[in-house]
Amino acid sequence: MNKTPIFKRVAIVGIGLIGSSLSRAIKANQLAAHVAVHDISIDALETAEKLSIADSYHESISDAVLESDLIVLAIPIRVYRETVSSMVSSLSSGAILTDVGSVKEEVIRVVKPILPIDMHLVPGHPVAGTEHSGPESGFSELFQDRWTILTPETGTNKNAVEIVKEMWQRVGSDVEIMGASHHDRVLAITSHLPHLIAYTIVATAADVEGQLKNEKADENTVTTAEVIKYSAGGFRDFTRIAGSDPVMWRDVFLSNKEAVLEMLGRFTEDLTALQRAIRWEDGDQLEALFKRTRSIRRSVVEAGQAGGFQYTEVSADKPKK
Amino acid sequence: MNKTPIFKRVAIVGIGLIGSSLSRAIKANQLAAHVAVHDISIDALETAEKLSIADSYHESISDAVLESDLIVLAIPIRVYRETVSSMVSSLSSGAILTDVGSVKEEVIRVVKPILPIDMHLVPGHPVAGTEHSGPESGFSELFQDRWTILTPETGTNKNAVEIVKEMWQRVGSDVEIMGASHHDRVLAITSHLPHLIAYTIVATAADVEGQLKNEKADENTVTTAEVIKYSAGGFRDFTRIAGSDPVMWRDVFLSNKEAVLEMLGRFTEDLTALQRAIRWEDGDQLEALFKRTRSIRRSVVEAGQAGGFQYTEVSADKPKK
Repeated sequence: MNKTPIFKRVAIVGIGLIGSSLSRAIKANQLAAHVAVHDISIDALETAEKLSIADSYHESISDAVLESDLIVLAIPIRVYRETVSSMVSSLSSGAILTDVGSVKEEVIRVVKPILPIDMHLVPGHPVAGTEHSGPESGFSELFQDRWTILTPETGTNKNAVEIVKEMWQRVGSDVEIMGASHHDRVLAITSHLPHLIAYTIVATAADVEGQLKNEKADENTVTTAEVIKYSAGGFRDFTRIAGSDPVMWRDVFLSNKEAVLEMLGRFTEDLTALQRAIRWEDGDQLEALFKRTRSIRRSVVEAGQAGGFQYTEVSADKPKK
Repeated sequence: MNKTPIFKRVAIVGIGLIGSSLSRAIKANQLAAHVAVHDISIDALETAEKLSIADSYHESISDAVLESDLIVLAIPIRVYRETVSSMVSSLSSGAILTDVGSVKEEVIRVVKPILPIDMHLVPGHPVAGTEHSGPESGFSELFQDRWTILTPETGTNKNAVEIVKEMWQRVGSDVEIMGASHHDRVLAITSHLPHLIAYTIVATAADVEGQLKNEKADENTVTTAEVIKYSAGGFRDFTRIAGSDPVMWRDVFLSNKEAVLEMLGRFTEDLTALQRAIRWEDGDQLEALFKRTRSIRRSVVEAGQAGGFQYTEVSADKPKK
């Protein structure tokens, strides 16, 4: 396996789950002579330093990116513009800017106009994560056997794309390259809509008690404590997803609005059809649908995408007793 | 710990995931001198015998329940009526009938009128499971540290209730007793609605390609293969739930129709509000909601209900490579 460092200096801007994991992974795989990290949170920087996830820790973003040949944005999408603006004067000619955001068209739309002409923009998205946030939640194996999607525009320097690709491969990812617009539609259905649905159902369940406060409490009144107590019946799987970083996900939905609304429209149609089947007690329709979804589950398991949250489950989720 | 057998003979009717797990658990904890199992599937019985999950295996339900002091129904709810009808003539006076179904009012409504007066009905529901089905998927630890809810009617023989309670406790469950109607509302929000949503979103995602067949395929066309490939972004968590037994779940929705439709109505309202917030780019509303759901996740983790699918994850979900 190739052991040569790829970069002289990598700057990672934002050291939450993904940023701190990538920093650890770059160091663990010796992909850079130096990894510099920046975060707007002093607390996060102090935690990162205690955990030794990088080689240097910077309150100043300019100091972090100075003389870096790769800069990685690992911050909420809606702060890309001001963040990149604040660093442009310190960027080196020929440096590569990449990111890890879950939406890619918006990145190109926002960043490209303010990036110096002698820089290379290679937007990226590792399809990996847990519901935990912050530098302490990262780990160097997060990207192993997961997909990373790069969405460089046509005409992007091929060498720059290859270098970013090699980095992700050497931290364990398989890399695919596709158009930003296509990426955003694929992720709208595979990631953004599932998160939206999970957030909603958790809120609905949490509100069951509150909604009932205006009614006379009777033997049918369901309490929030009961919702939590009996969550093993299915609900808890949604709480995991709905525990993901609120600011990051706010920005994902706002930045991929059109594709998310389209997929949500399809989902609502399907849900309404199922609601009707229940009301009319159309058991055949229900059973046929449930058999079809079961075969999709098998495909997901066969594709090897079924596990992956094991780190989280084992470390963070204690058994009941 | 009490090691005395509770029963002379237990009959388990239906040996899918739950029935076969309970059979194993009763034997592992020596709660009965004899465990007899019945299933309408000869294949299932042969598998069960190969796996030695019980003491005797019966194609005839009458043979299975004969001289049993406990009969456990572990079959889809919509076949309770005909199943109980077919066994009543073989039931012993004073025997207890219980079940493991996810809906409880319907059980009382259907079974009570056809049960001999000298029998005891103690409806039960272990809130435990994986998405796998069949006798081979069961294991004796399935109920450990999980809740089991009993919903006996007022006036049910107290001793019968205590005996069923003791059985669940000795296979590792914590037992709660509540009214059947209350149970059905709690489960509608904690289990039935989450399953319904998961089934729907998996179907929506699976149909993305099909829906697009009528359109001109372009760079935005998302394929089913891509949905599966990039499922680690959130979608795969839903496929697990949507891989659950189709017939069992068909019956759950039909048997708990009113409560499911009510919770679904609440969910749809909440989803529509979120859809509007995205369309109007109301970031504050989104962020506030996502912060609230995150705190619910913490409560679930603290309540110790967050793990539990670890058996499944570790055994069935192979890493990608």
